[in-house]
Amino acid sequence: MSKSFDVLVIGGGPGGYVAALRAAQLGFSVACCESNPYADPKGEPRLGGVCLNVGCIPSKAFLHTSHLFEEAEHAFAGQGIEVGKPKIDVAKMLARKAEIVTRLTTGIKGLFRKNKVTFLPGHGAFAGAFAAGWKIRVGAEEIGAREVIVATGSRARHLPGIPVDNQIICDNVGALAFDAVPKKLAIIGAGVIGLEMGSVWRRLGAEIDILEVGDRFLSAADSDVAKEAQRIFTKQGLRIQLGAQLGAVKAGKKGVVVAYSGKDGKASQIEADRLIVSAGRVPHTDGLNGEAVGLKMDARGAIEVDAHCRTNLPGVWAIGDVVRGPMLAHKAMEEGVMVAEIIAGQAGHCDLERIPSVIYTTPEIAWIGKTEQQLKAEGAAYRTGKIPFLANGRALGMGATEGFVKMLADTGTDRVLGVHIIGAGASDLIAEAVTALEFSAAAEDLARICHAHPTLSEVIHEAALACGARALHF
Amino acid sequence: MSKSFDVLVIGGGPGGYVAALRAAQLGFSVACCESNPYADPKGEPRLGGVCLNVGCIPSKAFLHTSHLFEEAEHAFAGQGIEVGKPKIDVAKMLARKAEIVTRLTTGIKGLFRKNKVTFLPGHGAFAGAFAAGWKIRVGAEEIGAREVIVATGSRARHLPGIPVDNQIICDNVGALAFDAVPKKLAIIGAGVIGLEMGSVWRRLGAEIDILEVGDRFLSAADSDVAKEAQRIFTKQGLRIQLGAQLGAVKAGKKGVVVAYSGKDGKASQIEADRLIVSAGRVPHTDGLNGEAVGLKMDARGAIEVDAHCRTNLPGVWAIGDVVRGPMLAHKAMEEGVMVAEIIAGQAGHCDLERIPSVIYTTPEIAWIGKTEQQLKAEGAAYRTGKIPFLANGRALGMGATEGFVKMLADTGTDRVLGVHIIGAGASDLIAEAVTALEFSAAAEDLARICHAHPTLSEVIHEAALACGARALHF
Repeated sequence: MSKSFDVLVIGGGPGGYVAALRAAQLGFSVACCESNPYADPKGEPRLGGVCLNVGCIPSKAFLHTSHLFEEAEHAFAGQGIEVGKPKIDVAKMLARKAEIVTRLTTGIKGLFRKNKVTFLPGHGAFAGAFAAGWKIRVGAEEIGAREVIVATGSRARHLPGIPVDNQIICDNVGALAFDAVPKKLAIIGAGVIGLEMGSVWRRLGAEIDILEVGDRFLSAADSDVAKEAQRIFTKQGLRIQLGAQLGAVKAGKKGVVVAYSGKDGKASQIEADRLIVSAGRVPHTDGLNGEAVGLKMDARGAIEVDAHCRTNLPGVWAIGDVVRGPMLAHKAMEEGVMVAEIIAGQAGHCDLERIPSVIYTTPEIAWIGKTEQQLKAEGAAYRTGKIPFLANGRALGMGATEGFVKMLADTGTDRVLGVHIIGAGASDLIAEAVTALEFSAAAEDLARICHAHPTLSEVIHEAALACGARALHF
Repeated sequence: MSKSFDVLVIGGGPGGYVAALRAAQLGFSVACCESNPYADPKGEPRLGGVCLNVGCIPSKAFLHTSHLFEEAEHAFAGQGIEVGKPKIDVAKMLARKAEIVTRLTTGIKGLFRKNKVTFLPGHGAFAGAFAAGWKIRVGAEEIGAREVIVATGSRARHLPGIPVDNQIICDNVGALAFDAVPKKLAIIGAGVIGLEMGSVWRRLGAEIDILEVGDRFLSAADSDVAKEAQRIFTKQGLRIQLGAQLGAVKAGKKGVVVAYSGKDGKASQIEADRLIVSAGRVPHTDGLNGEAVGLKMDARGAIEVDAHCRTNLPGVWAIGDVVRGPMLAHKAMEEGVMVAEIIAGQAGHCDLERIPSVIYTTPEIAWIGKTEQQLKAEGAAYRTGKIPFLANGRALGMGATEGFVKMLADTGTDRVLGVHIIGAGASDLIAEAVTALEFSAAAEDLARICHAHPTLSEVIHEAALACGARALHF
């Protein structure tokens, strides 16, 4: 072995790079390998994973720009701002996105240097065990490591008969690199990615058709939120069909035809310039060579781990999208910290019930804790406080009055069980709710905490008051 | 007496109307009187107070519009959004503001009906006592009340020799009703109102000069925040002069000349189209006739109250701007709830140390708890976690990378003592911090709570990590 480390992290995404940083902070010699160049112009491996390179970060840049575009087109005149009809320069939008991504991925390299993490560009694969740990082949080198953290992430689920070329038929990678606004865009999958990408390109002028195989819209969200979201997105112009059965997909050089049958069984088809396949993501373990060392996987292709991300092999851990639990960057980061701390003999922990979910549409959607349908299924006794953003002065000032905050609290103890937000600023408002749940707050606690006026956070305050049947502003 | 109530609230602002609503919820017969029409076109008294009519709410509407205007002018091109040079139609901006204000003030009338609060249009004044309580003259009527809550608010402090006509020389009322963008605008007072109004009109094209008598900029804020704010606002084009001595102010039909001497003692003058006087606010008790019943006031003209807002008279309470403490709508509302609950025999409380402060500039500023200079003065042992928004992916996506979050935690116990934010979304981000302080959270608690990625709230998370010298992304 050419080199040896206390900890080797395979994969430089949010879970992996954070695990590496935390392990280094705790005094270990640490390396992190990564082979994916994503969109690097020189084809060099990039840190940050799907999230930073072709996921969360670029999509948020597009969502911001396209939101402003839509404000300019539809909301400016009513406020007295006069501009001509806005036009989008897609190349510039892409260039700005690329600049942000480069800045952040370069930033992680800097954090590695600062924390003395060795970055190993190259694909990591198990090569066997030795007395003091595991042998990992990284590119042409063989590296020794006492502890190995597998953080290889996930990739888009592709569907049989629908070959992704990332030109006409795209997954998340191609969907973030369109060189022009499609006239018509078809999307398979009405999940987070489908809705966010559909929103971006709709705002910029595309006609959007979304086909969803499932019968229920946003089934993981609280059903009130899902219903409101479907109503709002439909009004915005997203044509969403649930319970669609996919037929043949025929792609040509200039477009694609998607055959399907609707809920009613009627055969139909959508012609579009492009198709985004956003039908979920699958754990990514290609070329990891886990089978050579007996690394146990589950039926879904995820690496099996316990609550502390231990695999079946001593000294081998797995975190993030490649294991069970929600495929979210912040969940992966928490697991990365946890594993590093456990390796250091500390008491790390990551509660999967306290990982917030966010969808960055307009309005935004975010939630934490139990949904009402979960509480019903459990037979729990709960109270509901539901307050519309329309009752909020700041939301009125922003012209962003759609949606509501719905708080669910235990009838007996008043403990907050879930907070569900669809509305402006939901992605940041949820932080207070997560903090409240982590402190086992009662709804009355939140009701008695002073919330600045006029802010969007007052809608959370009112929802807490409403749990006690004492809303002031509704 | 023509009518009698359990509770009579004098003043229909945020403190007053909330006290009335809460008292009614608790089963009392309640009336609330208000005489100020503010900008009502028919001259009828309006609920909502200064905040809703000529303060927080209209200013936030203007801040939103002018922020979008500035984005269109300066930030759109870099993102690929092509629009012509934006123009502002001030009349439309004013009309939209008026619509929002009317909607909210009408909404409070609706809340009064829903909660069975009697609205008495008219000025309330003490007329004497009787066996069962107090006699209050409201307009021509004499009303009896067992409990009286005085919530008469505050008015802009006017300065000797500077007569406000709300045309050329304006306080908050006139500053929210300019019929055109002034070419040059002078402002006396670099506090919240001066900075917010200066920001609005600067973004829309005015040249702004702000004269501040005090030596220190934003002296109530953490000094790091104040320093950063001064740097940013100056860069934006606000010309702020501290330690200015005001001389003669001469107003004509078309403008105003403000003579002053600078910090260096050098005499100078500013010529401007308009002048805003935002030199603080004073408690408003004109015509209350408190002296007739012996209501005790302090030297500042505020009504004297104890920690529970009891005045020296039995059954007479006072809340909000007319008493000690920060002149903030949300503080007044909390006091209104507290007094109603104490009257009902409950254990109401309002902790003035847990009232968040917010300034709605760009970037926003918000804080809770102790500033670093307060901790130094107390000789406290504390640790600091300070993280710039520049390290945050969402902030980069929004093009809003200025500012930082600074967290102060006790060295011994790790308890969070203060959170100071200058940056995008600060007004809503502070809610998590207030909740954390109310639960006596340690910095490590916040560090171990999962924050959604990519959100602005991650800057709070990182600041908490930094308190433990374990920041991940900085």
